Amino acid sequence: MSDNKVQIFDTTLRDGEQVPGCKLNTQQKLVIAEQLDLLGVDVIEAGFPVSSPGDFTSVNEIAKIVKNATVCGLTRAVENDIKVAAEALKYAKKPRIHTGIGTSESHIKYKFNSTQDKVIERGIAAVKYAKSFVEDVEFYAEDAGRTDNEFLARVCEAMIKAGATVLNIPDTTGYCLPEEYGAKIKYLKENVKGIDNVIISCHCHNDLGLATANSIAGAINGARQIECTINGIGERAGNTSLEEVVMIMKQHPYLNLNTDINSKLLYETSLMVSDHMGMMVQPNKAIVGANAFAHSSGIHQDGVIKNRETYEIIDPAEVGVTESAIVLTARSGRAALAYRAKKVGYELTKLQLDDVYTEFLKFADRKKEVVDDDIHQIMKNSNVTVAVVA
Amino acid sequence: MSDNKVQIFDTTLRDGEQVPGCKLNTQQKLVIAEQLDLLGVDVIEAGFPVSSPGDFTSVNEIAKIVKNATVCGLTRAVENDIKVAAEALKYAKKPRIHTGIGTSESHIKYKFNSTQDKVIERGIAAVKYAKSFVEDVEFYAEDAGRTDNEFLARVCEAMIKAGATVLNIPDTTGYCLPEEYGAKIKYLKENVKGIDNVIISCHCHNDLGLATANSIAGAINGARQIECTINGIGERAGNTSLEEVVMIMKQHPYLNLNTDINSKLLYETSLMVSDHMGMMVQPNKAIVGANAFAHSSGIHQDGVIKNRETYEIIDPAEVGVTESAIVLTARSGRAALAYRAKKVGYELTKLQLDDVYTEFLKFADRKKEVVDDDIHQIMKNSNVTVAVVA
Repeated sequence: MSDNKVQIFDTTLRDGEQVPGCKLNTQQKLVIAEQLDLLGVDVIEAGFPVSSPGDFTSVNEIAKIVKNATVCGLTRAVENDIKVAAEALKYAKKPRIHTGIGTSESHIKYKFNSTQDKVIERGIAAVKYAKSFVEDVEFYAEDAGRTDNEFLARVCEAMIKAGATVLNIPDTTGYCLPEEYGAKIKYLKENVKGIDNVIISCHCHNDLGLATANSIAGAINGARQIECTINGIGERAGNTSLEEVVMIMKQHPYLNLNTDINSKLLYETSLMVSDHMGMMVQPNKAIVGANAFAHSSGIHQDGVIKNRETYEIIDPAEVGVTESAIVLTARSGRAALAYRAKKVGYELTKLQLDDVYTEFLKFADRKKEVVDDDIHQIMKNSNVTVAVVA
Repeated sequence: MSDNKVQIFDTTLRDGEQVPGCKLNTQQKLVIAEQLDLLGVDVIEAGFPVSSPGDFTSVNEIAKIVKNATVCGLTRAVENDIKVAAEALKYAKKPRIHTGIGTSESHIKYKFNSTQDKVIERGIAAVKYAKSFVEDVEFYAEDAGRTDNEFLARVCEAMIKAGATVLNIPDTTGYCLPEEYGAKIKYLKENVKGIDNVIISCHCHNDLGLATANSIAGAINGARQIECTINGIGERAGNTSLEEVVMIMKQHPYLNLNTDINSKLLYETSLMVSDHMGMMVQPNKAIVGANAFAHSSGIHQDGVIKNRETYEIIDPAEVGVTESAIVLTARSGRAALAYRAKKVGYELTKLQLDDVYTEFLKFADRKKEVVDDDIHQIMKNSNVTVAVVA
């Protein structure tokens, strides 16, 4: 593995699927797991096997069919969770057990009514027990975002000694700012013995709209795995969006970070997950929203028609969207009108365009979006006789 | 104005409204403008008056009714645009004209077929002309995100001399990373003569999912206005989300940045904009999504029931949401089931809970979400006789 490769750990089927309204049956999960494997993710977190019989079966079936990715199952730092996960994963080509425990003061005090030392002991025991089943063991320090860095470093060092191969540093509540989260990863890189032999993983939540920025800050500071979901689904405001972090690394080559994702499959994967889960993607969602490549204002449309790069940093084809739509609204300018008029058959001179544009504005002020059919009506209203393009 | 106050410039009615499908009539715009004024935004960008007769009327009517906020109209660096905007704004208590021109190589070369010097000249002329109508003139350096910092500093200095009161540094294509955008604002703060007498404004787009992080990076580095929209709507993947930047500043007091927004009105404002525009908000949208405060996994639910702060960094009441919903799914644990069972009238002992939970899991594996009514059925299936809470 190159030093600059950032592993993509997809948790759509675990952190994404545990969301209200997102439940999938095993068959649906298998279809999505196959697509994720095709997309090129490095790890598929397939579920939380001990949580329900349905989840156990799904992880078990996914483990059988995935060809390339590591298949991972979530557990608490509890023996039975780990045993059940190992059982669910037994047919996986590359199995991983993901175990861990809360490390912030809030979690230790209110959730476990425990102490720092006892939490470390439980973590060590869980990692060692998981190691008795599989080689690849990821440890999560839940609520690491609000965990004191010095204690977090102690936790990490202990888990490396116990055999963890990946250390997950979750910003569980979505509280961190990018500088803060980046500094946390940097602190671990600089202060934990043996850290260079394991992979640091970012698992960020989007409660303040910062999951993507935090994950990238983590990778810039040395993390080499990002945990994310398709369409950014997940608990509350969701997880980091897979499509966003992948395209940021792709669009900013100077970061010198790369992934194995085939970005051309992003859009169809987004649609598939949204359809199966009945979890809609808002039109203004980055990369995969319906409007992500639509230009409607006159100023912008004029620019795009002259040169796509004026307003578009990503070629829509790069993420599997076939063309950027020039949508006509009351904000559109003459260039956009002429462009679409030509598409439906009218070649307008500059003078004709002035007349038609006046009619267009009257029409568009009454209607949210002017579609191609409306253009014929507008042409009639304007009484302009034009050359019709063959 | 305190040095730490960040002005909130809302462009829901301009950058938001120009989106496919988002067109509003004047009456709807007036309702939203009144709500924004109540919410406490500092500036309402009401439209682009020259773009259509409907837009002119809307800006004109909004200018008449807004009590506290500055009302702003967009223009290109074109005399007629500015004259029409001034006319539209003539009844505003605090009018602002927002004019500008593209400054990146891509814009100068492909959009204007011009030179750097000519672009500066056009900018100066526009600012001076706008100044002949109103005192408060904001200048936008379009595509500043991809504009060379040295040239951008020259542009800013020239516009300050010409009389601009606010300098808008848009990342028009949503290309910048937070560090990069923050560094750009810092460069301007350090290298532009007279910069401390004007306000630097962030206008970020969300094409890579970084608009919020970029705006905050801008404010940390000296910007004192953020341009944003309700629900993050706007061209393509949208603008910075007003609710996200406001809550970040509120939740991170150590940043020492504040706004005048009444956060308790955020949720109702989000619903109002979404309803009028028919522009849905995805459930996993930060702050205002339907799931933003919903907990569904057993681990999380258990934590929240013990102590809300375990998983919730924002008290939902702070943004106008009345309670965080504990939603029952196949991922829910015993604590959540007991909590909701109690809400609908069943007080379960620990042993009873074990029985009912087994029934619950069978039920939940077949159904996406278990609602309160289902609990009665589950109780029947489980054959457990329980004390019914009065």
